[in-house]
Amino acid sequence: MKPTILISNDDGIEAEGIYALASKIRKFANVIIVAPYTQQSAVGHSITMSNPIRVRRVYLEKNFFGYAVEGTPADSVKLAVHTILKNKKIDLLISGINQGANTAINIIYSGTVSAATEGTILGLPSIAVSLTSYTYKKFSVAAEYASKIAKLVLKNGLPSGTLLNVNVPAVPKSKIKGILVTKQGKSSWNDTYEKRFDPGNREYYWLTGSMLKLDESVEFDVKAIDSNYVSVTPIQYDLTDYNAYQKLQSWKF
Amino acid sequence: MKPTILISNDDGIEAEGIYALASKIRKFANVIIVAPYTQQSAVGHSITMSNPIRVRRVYLEKNFFGYAVEGTPADSVKLAVHTILKNKKIDLLISGINQGANTAINIIYSGTVSAATEGTILGLPSIAVSLTSYTYKKFSVAAEYASKIAKLVLKNGLPSGTLLNVNVPAVPKSKIKGILVTKQGKSSWNDTYEKRFDPGNREYYWLTGSMLKLDESVEFDVKAIDSNYVSVTPIQYDLTDYNAYQKLQSWKF
Repeated sequence: MKPTILISNDDGIEAEGIYALASKIRKFANVIIVAPYTQQSAVGHSITMSNPIRVRRVYLEKNFFGYAVEGTPADSVKLAVHTILKNKKIDLLISGINQGANTAINIIYSGTVSAATEGTILGLPSIAVSLTSYTYKKFSVAAEYASKIAKLVLKNGLPSGTLLNVNVPAVPKSKIKGILVTKQGKSSWNDTYEKRFDPGNREYYWLTGSMLKLDESVEFDVKAIDSNYVSVTPIQYDLTDYNAYQKLQSWKF
Repeated sequence: MKPTILISNDDGIEAEGIYALASKIRKFANVIIVAPYTQQSAVGHSITMSNPIRVRRVYLEKNFFGYAVEGTPADSVKLAVHTILKNKKIDLLISGINQGANTAINIIYSGTVSAATEGTILGLPSIAVSLTSYTYKKFSVAAEYASKIAKLVLKNGLPSGTLLNVNVPAVPKSKIKGILVTKQGKSSWNDTYEKRFDPGNREYYWLTGSMLKLDESVEFDVKAIDSNYVSVTPIQYDLTDYNAYQKLQSWKF
């Protein structure tokens, strides 16, 4: 029997990445798409509590539709599991394919990762997949790796509370050196705000910046990607710092 | 010389909790308030990239103002550090006092925690403080504990990449048994969506649910709070699951 795979994303249901992913995954699984209606990048793990949420069908092609949720990526997954697919067994959740890397510190701002995290919280084996460029539009290689990794997760399972954050380099398939299991990189942003003035001469700020690449080993996601490896980082939502937990016991509160 | 403490929150600059916190912290520190203009609960670690951000002064009392940011908690802290306080040494960031618990899985949806996480990312020792009730309005005890813990952090420092997530029980001071260093609880939500119909007979969904308390030891934040302890959980933003990292090395990719 074919597995049932829930697909979501943060770029919105009409994004190229989700279509490329769904097209590839449909070859071996029943695919159900539940994704935000509009682009939701950098929303982090937002959920909508103070507003109603609406859902509508959107056709990706004839006879192939998805559910568009007026909410965040995490909303989409929560709603899919609790209502749209309520009594259905879901074997796997895949979030993506995101346009742009979700490596290092970006993970915590990522709507793509948050959809997969929500899946994990709800007990589904979950994978987030990103193509590491904002402009490179060839999603087919990333979809192929997503498909491969999905099959492995269906076979091996994942530890409870763990999801996979997959990043695929934006290069032709012949350039990709293989798959590496990695750690979240230590690279950070040298961000700042540009101060500007609107036509009414009132000031406003706009976020700008670039990533400072501090990771020197392919053990870390950022460097693995830059070295043309597909990066697979197991991540978790238990944020406890266990070293600090031990250390703080000696504080005199 | 007095330390300089940046205060933010997710309930908005006009919330009672931030005023109670600032009033107490001002007794030993220079306080600068930079907080969202409006209520931002459950925004997670959102940042605003596609829109301009405006800032305005808001007076909490005569001669005591804060900067209100039209954005998220993480935006507020980022903007504070990069523009408002650009060349100023900041000794500590405190986010809060939130109205409502930020324990167990709630941490990852929390705007209060995300403001403190952003502080940590930017290199500031950071603390998130929450009062564990949505209705109990007496913030003074929580402010007192925030003040005590702030002084300890100023004295001892925090490991790089680690922040403290503090929750204070919503009970009178005489009932509080002390401070415990805890782990993020395993309690989760049995959430679901209520299906409703609007006056035009179109359906919509509204999130509802309650927490399933699964933690049985005061080692965990949820149980510590229920046992009337102030809970201090050291958390981190390196999400790598190091056990799974080892385990996945044997997968045949």
